[in-house]
Amino acid sequence: MRSTLDGALGFKLLEVTEDSARGRFDVTDAVRQPMGIVHGGAYAAMAETMASATTYKAVQPEGSIAVGQSNHTSFLRPVADGAVHAEARRRHRGRTSWIWEVDFTDDQGRLCAIARVTMAIRPAPAS
Amino acid sequence: MRSTLDGALGFKLLEVTEDSARGRFDVTDAVRQPMGIVHGGAYAAMAETMASATTYKAVQPEGSIAVGQSNHTSFLRPVADGAVHAEARRRHRGRTSWIWEVDFTDDQGRLCAIARVTMAIRPAPAS
Amino acid sequence: MRSTLDGALGFKLLEVTEDSARGRFDVTDAVRQPMGIVHGGAYAAMAETMASATTYKAVQPEGSIAVGQSNHTSFLRPVADGAVHAEARRRHRGRTSWIWEVDFTDDQGRLCAIARVTMAIRPAPAS
Amino acid sequence: MRSTLDGALGFKLLEVTEDSARGRFDVTDAVRQPMGIVHGGAYAAMAETMASATTYKAVQPEGSIAVGQSNHTSFLRPVADGAVHAEARRRHRGRTSWIWEVDFTDDQGRLCAIARVTMAIRPAPAS
Repeated sequence: MRSTLDGALGFKLLEVTEDSARGRFDVTDAVRQPMGIVHGGAYAAMAETMASATTYKAVQPEGSIAVGQSNHTSFLRPVADGAVHAEARRRHRGRTSWIWEVDFTDDQGRLCAIARVTMAIRPAPAS
Repeated sequence: MRSTLDGALGFKLLEVTEDSARGRFDVTDAVRQPMGIVHGGAYAAMAETMASATTYKAVQPEGSIAVGQSNHTSFLRPVADGAVHAEARRRHRGRTSWIWEVDFTDDQGRLCAIARVTMAIRPAPAS
Repeated sequence: MRSTLDGALGFKLLEVTEDSARGRFDVTDAVRQPMGIVHGGAYAAMAETMASATTYKAVQPEGSIAVGQSNHTSFLRPVADGAVHAEARRRHRGRTSWIWEVDFTDDQGRLCAIARVTMAIRPAPAS
Repeated sequence: MRSTLDGALGFKLLEVTEDSARGRFDVTDAVRQPMGIVHGGAYAAMAETMASATTYKAVQPEGSIAVGQSNHTSFLRPVADGAVHAEARRRHRGRTSWIWEVDFTDDQGRLCAIARVTMAIRPAPAS
């Protein structure tokens, strides 16, 4: 993940299963907006990373790929320091789309943001 | 914008008015996901930056602040190279919330992603 | 609820607490689209009804009202017969906004749709 | 549209092309919530109807069907009387998904709600 957006923002995937994932990022300047709190885009990006990584891993053995289709993140509480903890769970596993929900909490366990990510499943391009 | 998420991802705000904004980011590794295309979170983050900057600038003189409340981005077409161009326009200016829509296009002018961002307007904290 | 949209579509609220709600509607023609399955708008409307009723009941004693701000419903599985069962739970209780998530299941308990509803809390208009 | 949700709520489709649509509904009790204003679900349902009807009409000749996947409606201004006017325009025409945006205005032309609807395109079931 080093030379990608995940690396630039310091995202860490801690656990990936077929229907859940756990991750984390530290609150450094790279994820802050100018007022000093975590940029809303950091939550959205982390949710996208988690949904993509998990779905991709699951469908690739069947000759499919996973493509992000939609990401809807709501911001509940600002975080200025510490780390942001993310838990993803799969809500839907269809033939052509998967849906994930991701909860974000701060170091005190308070809910800070929630995301719904829809992944489209497509046949892998012939290479 | 240097030492923030905007800087880490290379976002550029080119023009900001009260009801529109234009921006851009180059497709470098810092905005790519592992497959080599632009990470969905980059579009969401750019939309958030544009909506925040414009709203903040407009409401601050009245003693208010703008806080991101919701970001819904849909991904239409992958981009692997060149630059991503963003145009934001304000759809709603309420007393307590503003809504922005952002269109993203590639260097050929093709629509790649669309975002709807809701900003909450709050009284500035007394300092 | 008789002479409102709730009545026209046959919505039933079975239980309302401060942080959850249960409801149901039968699959009659009034909630179907032309192909014979439940219209997507029926799920969205039921989610809106549940979030509004619960939030309103909670904030009214404090002199506030609740106003729907945003409704995002995803459709997972078509339903053609029987009843649709809805369970709402509150994800966020802020000073100015509440967020609800609603799960919809069919008679076999399969997840059919999910909704996120954001309610804005406002001071009740002086009358 | 008589014996469906569209009929129950009084929806009227006035014009349908491949990339746009116009519709209307009168503000009767059937679309009101208990406070006397238009129920948020009425906007969401109307957007769903318009996106479905237009997409279905376009893809059916090619042996495909259109299925609602996601509906995100934001509410900007309450409407208590008169009619609600809806204009839909297609933002994306992909092989497997179409995206529509719908603007709702009141009789004075003021923007009251906006919706983004994603339709999935699937092969028609063999019958």
